[in-house]
Amino acid sequence: SHQIRVGNYLLERLAQLGVTTLFGVPGDFNLGFLDLVEDDPKIHWAGNCNELNAAYAADGFARVKESGVGALVTTFGVGELSAINGIAGAFSEHVPVVHIVGVPNTLQLKTKPMLHHTLGDGRFDAYLKAAEQFTRSQAILTRKENADVEIDRVLTDCILSGKPVYITLPTDVAYEKISAARLRTPLNREPPENDPETEASVIESIYKLVKAVNGNVAVLIDACTIRHHIKEELKEFLDKTQFPVYAAPMGKTAIDEGHPRYGGVYVGSISHPDILEKVEGAKLTISIGSMLSDFNTGNFTYHIPRSKTVELHSDHSRVLHALFPGIGFKRLLPKLTAKLAEFRSISHKISVPRFVFPVPSESNDIISQAWLWPRVGQFFRPRDVIIAETGTSSFGIIDVPLPKEATLITQVLWGSIGYTVGALLGAACAARDCHLGRTILFIGDGSLQVTVQELSTLITNNVTPIIFVLNNSGYTIERFIRGMHRKYNDIASWEYTQLLNTFTKDKDATISYTVKTKAELDALLNDDTFNRAEKVQLVELIMLAEDAPAALSRQTELGGKTNKYG
Amino acid sequence: SHQIRVGNYLLERLAQLGVTTLFGVPGDFNLGFLDLVEDDPKIHWAGNCNELNAAYAADGFARVKESGVGALVTTFGVGELSAINGIAGAFSEHVPVVHIVGVPNTLQLKTKPMLHHTLGDGRFDAYLKAAEQFTRSQAILTRKENADVEIDRVLTDCILSGKPVYITLPTDVAYEKISAARLRTPLNREPPENDPETEASVIESIYKLVKAVNGNVAVLIDACTIRHHIKEELKEFLDKTQFPVYAAPMGKTAIDEGHPRYGGVYVGSISHPDILEKVEGAKLTISIGSMLSDFNTGNFTYHIPRSKTVELHSDHSRVLHALFPGIGFKRLLPKLTAKLAEFRSISHKISVPRFVFPVPSESNDIISQAWLWPRVGQFFRPRDVIIAETGTSSFGIIDVPLPKEATLITQVLWGSIGYTVGALLGAACAARDCHLGRTILFIGDGSLQVTVQELSTLITNNVTPIIFVLNNSGYTIERFIRGMHRKYNDIASWEYTQLLNTFTKDKDATISYTVKTKAELDALLNDDTFNRAEKVQLVELIMLAEDAPAALSRQTELGGKTNKYG
Ligand SMILES: Cc1ncc(C[n+]2csc(CCOP(=O)(O)OP(=O)(O)O)c2C)c(N)n1
Ligand SMILES: Cc1ncc(C[n+]2csc(CCOP(=O)(O)OP(=O)(O)O)c2C)c(N)n1
Ligand SMILES: [Mg+2]
Ligand SMILES: [Mg+2]
Repeated sequence: SHQIRVGNYLLERLAQLGVTTLFGVPGDFNLGFLDLVEDDPKIHWAGNCNELNAAYAADGFARVKESGVGALVTTFGVGELSAINGIAGAFSEHVPVVHIVGVPNTLQLKTKPMLHHTLGDGRFDAYLKAAEQFTRSQAILTRKENADVEIDRVLTDCILSGKPVYITLPTDVAYEKISAARLRTPLNREPPENDPETEASVIESIYKLVKAVNGNVAVLIDACTIRHHIKEELKEFLDKTQFPVYAAPMGKTAIDEGHPRYGGVYVGSISHPDILEKVEGAKLTISIGSMLSDFNTGNFTYHIPRSKTVELHSDHSRVLHALFPGIGFKRLLPKLTAKLAEFRSISHKISVPRFVFPVPSESNDIISQAWLWPRVGQFFRPRDVIIAETGTSSFGIIDVPLPKEATLITQVLWGSIGYTVGALLGAACAARDCHLGRTILFIGDGSLQVTVQELSTLITNNVTPIIFVLNNSGYTIERFIRGMHRKYNDIASWEYTQLLNTFTKDKDATISYTVKTKAELDALLNDDTFNRAEKVQLVELIMLAEDAPAALSRQTELGGKTNKYG
Repeated sequence: SHQIRVGNYLLERLAQLGVTTLFGVPGDFNLGFLDLVEDDPKIHWAGNCNELNAAYAADGFARVKESGVGALVTTFGVGELSAINGIAGAFSEHVPVVHIVGVPNTLQLKTKPMLHHTLGDGRFDAYLKAAEQFTRSQAILTRKENADVEIDRVLTDCILSGKPVYITLPTDVAYEKISAARLRTPLNREPPENDPETEASVIESIYKLVKAVNGNVAVLIDACTIRHHIKEELKEFLDKTQFPVYAAPMGKTAIDEGHPRYGGVYVGSISHPDILEKVEGAKLTISIGSMLSDFNTGNFTYHIPRSKTVELHSDHSRVLHALFPGIGFKRLLPKLTAKLAEFRSISHKISVPRFVFPVPSESNDIISQAWLWPRVGQFFRPRDVIIAETGTSSFGIIDVPLPKEATLITQVLWGSIGYTVGALLGAACAARDCHLGRTILFIGDGSLQVTVQELSTLITNNVTPIIFVLNNSGYTIERFIRGMHRKYNDIASWEYTQLLNTFTKDKDATISYTVKTKAELDALLNDDTFNRAEKVQLVELIMLAEDAPAALSRQTELGGKTNKYG
């Protein structure tokens, strides 16, 4: 049959999984593979400034490309280790990222000479040992014979687990020729069937519980509904059952926030009192795709005992105290929908609070956190991709109702600052591909400084996102945690509006604004040209160092109690 | 006795080891410790933009602060993993860096809740497992009782091994009070004594070999002579024995390059023919502190058989085929000097090539690699700290004779691009401390883009280095390896001279120049104000994409043969 290089085999598989842009940085152990990339008509090489940002970009790409993967290429040692924090983030947050590392040739891997990028002590497996901590599976390609099978194995793992995987590609193996036959069979992208008997018993027990409480149910949706691609099944479930539904911060946009049965965001004891009462007052909670991290739960202040909770996950279920390993929600949910639809008329009557967030009128002209977030809420449009960096932004966005088919990207669990600059690039590339709306980032000044160079790659990749930089003179979120007036929470004052034109020679490709007052921001957000987003646009918002969104102040009050020093 | 917080105990020890600037980034698990840092009058907090750069800075600091250490503070997971490539580089290149990680409190470490910055699966030891691959030893502090002993153990390891170590500091342990008693005893900084009998036999065998060849010896010095602090012992050895001496690229500046017995740089078969003849023609080679990596040896083309080589290392020796574990050069060398001094009058007669590098006259005005390096050689002054980034710079600097007491920083083995921006910050802080000369960086445009934000931290730390940016439109070193005209070797065109004033609001703190011709560069290098280096100065050198220093073209010709693709 048709022969193909191992490198091209890998590229074909990636293309099948929706990779149109490949992120990464060249290095002498991957240059041969990059020739194949550059010559591949289906895949575009993004050319990142550094590997951490490339990993973040692959993560952002994967999040927008629903049921696809993101991918990056780095070089042995120096490149792959630079990316590892981004890979760990994808692991933590369930994002399918393929990390391809160009490594020395197979002879060198055996003889282990003191090559550059080695530790100098002959340990050639140290990087793999590190990677194993943060990836679901690894393919250490050492010969052409099993390369196709190995590649297929880890890519399948990547899609099904929603976690990153690691592939090492020796310079010579990348160029070996193998049969292309396997490529004709697409990789399995569907989770395994649930065991029918167990599944039936789960459905039956849930049915009984719902019946016992006479349909007095609250559904709580969270991150994994988005990451494991059950938004459609979820919508069907809610439409048919009419159960009231609330989202954890990481579950925002799993259901359109204008859905009539959507009541807003539940974050334990820091939730809005109306929401808290509704969620904790329901007789039964059906929790779908939860990820119960500190920042996602108001510092573990859920008051929902297990004795009234059904939990549905990608790979297991739990009905009150009983665990059902292997019963995943993708297959279960449609059947559950059918079974519970009969409660529709009762549950329809349970009222849900309307999820609104009016712009307050304030007596001064400063851009306050309290004013900013509801105001930008009005600026969003359906299908926009909205990204909020860890800091005041990730907390500010929680209370903003997002438009229909909006995508929200935050890193509430991993919380690595700087993530969103890379993720913005990846998300914008994927959004262009999927014909989504504008890509819009909110980022603090401190976070921007971590990964700022990747703004330049937006320009070279011809994507045109909008970047709001919250210039509040430093690490405000940290100030609220500790050290309100400490110098370690200050940062260098940059000329943020000069950044874009420093990172390009094309003066028409970008435009930057400094905005100091509510009136100025209003005007900009209402401006047609600005809204059309035809260039990279950066808006510096001048804000106060000691101002935080309400959700953040409440969270840090709770967190402060558990994280005492002396 | 006097009570002190664990965090302060650690700071006192660091201060004893020469730490005056501490690098890193705040995070909620280290903020309490940073209060102690900020309140410590002896240690200044650098406040980096990101953790990778902080690790690089700690490495640069340690290299300049001879026989001291560098240190950085990061936060659990996200911070420490961002730094790991910098730590691995310090491991590979034998640089003593102390990595302090702020981690959750001891209760949380036991109960393992789903905190932010965790992997979401309860594995709290994953980061340690990764760190173990790249650090010499680790102190996982979990209680105050042994905190002082543990801290002392790893700091001692750090100094004696010249490799990085890892300390995790839980938020509560940092604030526990312990006795300060141990602080009165300084940590041991001297390597252990050699076993006297073995040492004597090593000296005797070397003596016999030297006698047998009638003093026809070439000494070859390399990286570990610098890293393990035997520059003084080495000078004494060469002064007393008068053996001719040559340096590997990583051994440059181990001996003053104006030393009368210094013949220049030996890099295997890509050495200057005169040097090659002298080194490979000697009857016996005494190799001191070697690190025989590909780029340090002309791609493993030494033609010096083991049967005529004596190797002295920090922790072992080798005389021809015989290994002597535990016989380290720091103690051995003075005794060897005494024993071999009798050959002085014979070896004095062996001629050494003069290490000179005249500025060529070229017919055009372009700043060529062939012209640049000898020209900047004339610009250097005694005690300058010179840093050359991986790329054309690290190869270009090889042939430049450096002035007396100059320090040279390169990363020939690890070779992680972007390293030198962070290292520049650390080196400049240490150089200021040690009253050295100017700190001068040569960096390619591609490498600068990797870590550019840390230029801003130079300004906030009030150091005033000179930065030469070789703008050659991309990854020239890679072009010579593969893909001369490939797009993956192109990078975004930045306005390099706008960088500094984008990263500060203080317009007097910095100045930037673009230099397009030899004449312009000549004028600048002769300018008094420029030479005084009283501000941060950035010089963009416009150069050709397809131009490389001779040492690089020769190296890549050799390397290309081993790294074949298909
Ligand atoms: C890689 C990494 N380093 C450090 C931290 C700790 N950290 C969390 S938030 C934050 C400050 C963010 O400041 P900024 O982006 O300015 O946000 P804002 O001021 O809006 O809160 C820091 C340093 C982190 N989360 N990730
Ligand atoms: C972190 C890291 N990523 C990738 C590489 C591979 N690499 C080695 S040199 C180089 C290009 C350097 O280009 P530049 O700094 O412009 O140097 P020059 O053009 O002067 O050679 C690259 C990408 C590396 N060594 N380290
Ligand atoms: Mg800020
Ligand atoms: Mg370059």
